[in-house]
Amino acid sequence: MVNIDYALNVICKETKIIGTENKDLLSSVNRVLAEDIYSKDNLPPFNKSSKDGYAIKSEDTLNCSKENVCKLKVKGIIKAGDFINDTLKNGEAYKIMTGAPIPKGADAVVKIEDIEIKDDNLFIFEPINENNNIIKFGEEIKIGDLAIKKDTVIRPVEIGVLASLGYSSVKVYKAPTVALIITGDELVDINSDIKNGQIRNSNEYSLKALVTNLNAEVLSLGIVSDDRENLKEKMKYALEKADIVITSGGASVGDYDFVKDILKEIGADIKFSKIAIKPGKPVTFATFNEKLFFALPGNPSSLITTFEKFVKPTIEKIMGKDDFHSEQFKVIAMYDFECEIGREKYVYVEIKKKDGNYYAYKVGSQCSNHLMTMSRANGIIVIPKEIGHVKAGEAFNGEFIFGINFKKYIKE
Amino acid sequence: MVNIDYALNVICKETKIIGTENKDLLSSVNRVLAEDIYSKDNLPPFNKSSKDGYAIKSEDTLNCSKENVCKLKVKGIIKAGDFINDTLKNGEAYKIMTGAPIPKGADAVVKIEDIEIKDDNLFIFEPINENNNIIKFGEEIKIGDLAIKKDTVIRPVEIGVLASLGYSSVKVYKAPTVALIITGDELVDINSDIKNGQIRNSNEYSLKALVTNLNAEVLSLGIVSDDRENLKEKMKYALEKADIVITSGGASVGDYDFVKDILKEIGADIKFSKIAIKPGKPVTFATFNEKLFFALPGNPSSLITTFEKFVKPTIEKIMGKDDFHSEQFKVIAMYDFECEIGREKYVYVEIKKKDGNYYAYKVGSQCSNHLMTMSRANGIIVIPKEIGHVKAGEAFNGEFIFGINFKKYIKE
Repeated sequence: MVNIDYALNVICKETKIIGTENKDLLSSVNRVLAEDIYSKDNLPPFNKSSKDGYAIKSEDTLNCSKENVCKLKVKGIIKAGDFINDTLKNGEAYKIMTGAPIPKGADAVVKIEDIEIKDDNLFIFEPINENNNIIKFGEEIKIGDLAIKKDTVIRPVEIGVLASLGYSSVKVYKAPTVALIITGDELVDINSDIKNGQIRNSNEYSLKALVTNLNAEVLSLGIVSDDRENLKEKMKYALEKADIVITSGGASVGDYDFVKDILKEIGADIKFSKIAIKPGKPVTFATFNEKLFFALPGNPSSLITTFEKFVKPTIEKIMGKDDFHSEQFKVIAMYDFECEIGREKYVYVEIKKKDGNYYAYKVGSQCSNHLMTMSRANGIIVIPKEIGHVKAGEAFNGEFIFGINFKKYIKE
Repeated sequence: MVNIDYALNVICKETKIIGTENKDLLSSVNRVLAEDIYSKDNLPPFNKSSKDGYAIKSEDTLNCSKENVCKLKVKGIIKAGDFINDTLKNGEAYKIMTGAPIPKGADAVVKIEDIEIKDDNLFIFEPINENNNIIKFGEEIKIGDLAIKKDTVIRPVEIGVLASLGYSSVKVYKAPTVALIITGDELVDINSDIKNGQIRNSNEYSLKALVTNLNAEVLSLGIVSDDRENLKEKMKYALEKADIVITSGGASVGDYDFVKDILKEIGADIKFSKIAIKPGKPVTFATFNEKLFFALPGNPSSLITTFEKFVKPTIEKIMGKDDFHSEQFKVIAMYDFECEIGREKYVYVEIKKKDGNYYAYKVGSQCSNHLMTMSRANGIIVIPKEIGHVKAGEAFNGEFIFGINFKKYIKE
């Protein structure tokens, strides 16, 4: 039995980028850039007005005041998208719209709220500084400048930057294909009634949701019966077609737990087969050629816990997010409970915040096939290996589960 | 000009659920349940073994010890998925696999690691408690029990619960269709070279990414020229087909800013048309029948800022996530800067954490068309309306941007 940190280190060491792929711009959201992005243009590509107003020569306004109102002649209008091949002379102005190019000779824009206009005459009541309301050529970025660094997560704002630079596709780290093999002769399709001894195949659905939520590809081989030859064929097929193979169930100590034997038989390199975590002890991790194999427990909440802890960072690392640690914070237990000594316990709780502190409340039995408990939880507290009794008021490390945005579901 | 909180309150008041839709189970991830989910079964549907071991009568082991080893007769094996119509008698045992049903007459399971076996004889070295390693019928949930409450966000664990209860589809709140109208005669397609006075249409891409990231539907009408009749037709079409309409640009004070006029002309109810936020002042919010209309600024970072602040909570509320507030925390400014008095300033910064405190570092110009600055930022600090000078060391409210999981990208 290995410790959680040891397991994570071994997995992390074996996990490598599997390549890059070109994605059209909008499909690249939430993926990670596998190339540096350089600007092919100067942005803005011309001096441009940041306001609706009038393009002028600032020197014409040096002595303007309410007493000594300046008068300029409006020669025409420049809309966004226009380009005027004219040079402004002293005493002249162009009406100009936000985003439109500043005409030659002009060096400032006075905004529409600050002037008066009568026929073609523009009246200005104060001196206007040079460069006022002008966004300068190349101010945002210049040709050849690094715009976005390799290894950046592509958020909507990066989509905007890439579009403005004319990138309609980008190179991102390839998403792994994750094969799923669900073992267990007791499993029936979710549309079936359950007869004596049967339960529905929920693990396949949980795993599909977990994998697709990470933007990886799923190749599900569905329920595979506890028949050794059949299972072996499916495992070989999965290792051929996918980058990561996950089995659920069939890797414990029972007579029909063939997964480990088959891994040995086909020559996979088994790195460990038990982790000191609860729920979730019977986790086998193996490599076969460049492929990664996770045999996870069949108990639904052990499965989800070990996926989140061990498989998720693996998928994220392959996709360019090097994230083999989770953000933990202090949480105070609000109830007493007993737990097993010898494994690190991930206890599912409801975390509430009060006066800046976090508190953990009981949501149900921690029996490892109780998905209902997990469903009522928004976080976990981690009880160290050597602790067997927890008393209300004691503080432990905690984290929110399922990563995405869960702080906002905490009740204050 | 209205305050941010006033604007949010008005928008929130006008924002209503637009209906529900049935989704097949896997498509419902990250959506919000629009129905209470009740169990149609008892789970587990039978007393089941939580371990690989032997099903026994606990009373047979009352006096077992290392000195007084008990011997039971193994009658057969029960695999997961099997169902044995036999009643265990005193002195008998069944080998049993994890997940398999406990045979009648048995009331405990002794795990495989704790016994010895020779031929059909099972040797036990200690008393085994009643119910040991048995998960009881209905222990997780009973027929008719509430399994998941309406208004719950469907995470992978809820997918597992729903699958285990036999739900292959669920009712969720309907996602709105969001129409996009991009105005600006200076805009060209992202695949085009930019000529004098032109810029690429990045706003359409940013908006598509922002909307699809929220799981809402996009109906993009693309670039619409600054031609009043054409724009009016497109706005009417969008209001007919979509639940929310967003325009970018064309709603300021310029001669070609027709959006507001058209809204008045078609009889829309304009609630406000300026918000005291920087970047992003010229935001018009209007309602038309049951539809919501947001005229957002054309400057790229004003557009993204106002989308995140005003449109995102609207979309989320329609989809069942009532989330008209963001999680803020104290951040200490690490540089001096000047800013405009009279509007609340959203200053894009890099937030770093040190010794439990958060610090804001400069990432670039806050000019409202600098997407590059936003792209270097992981958060904002909010400078109150009345403040015009910020000094390093002063603390402000801050938040992370783009919601999802960004705490982990903070450098400690």
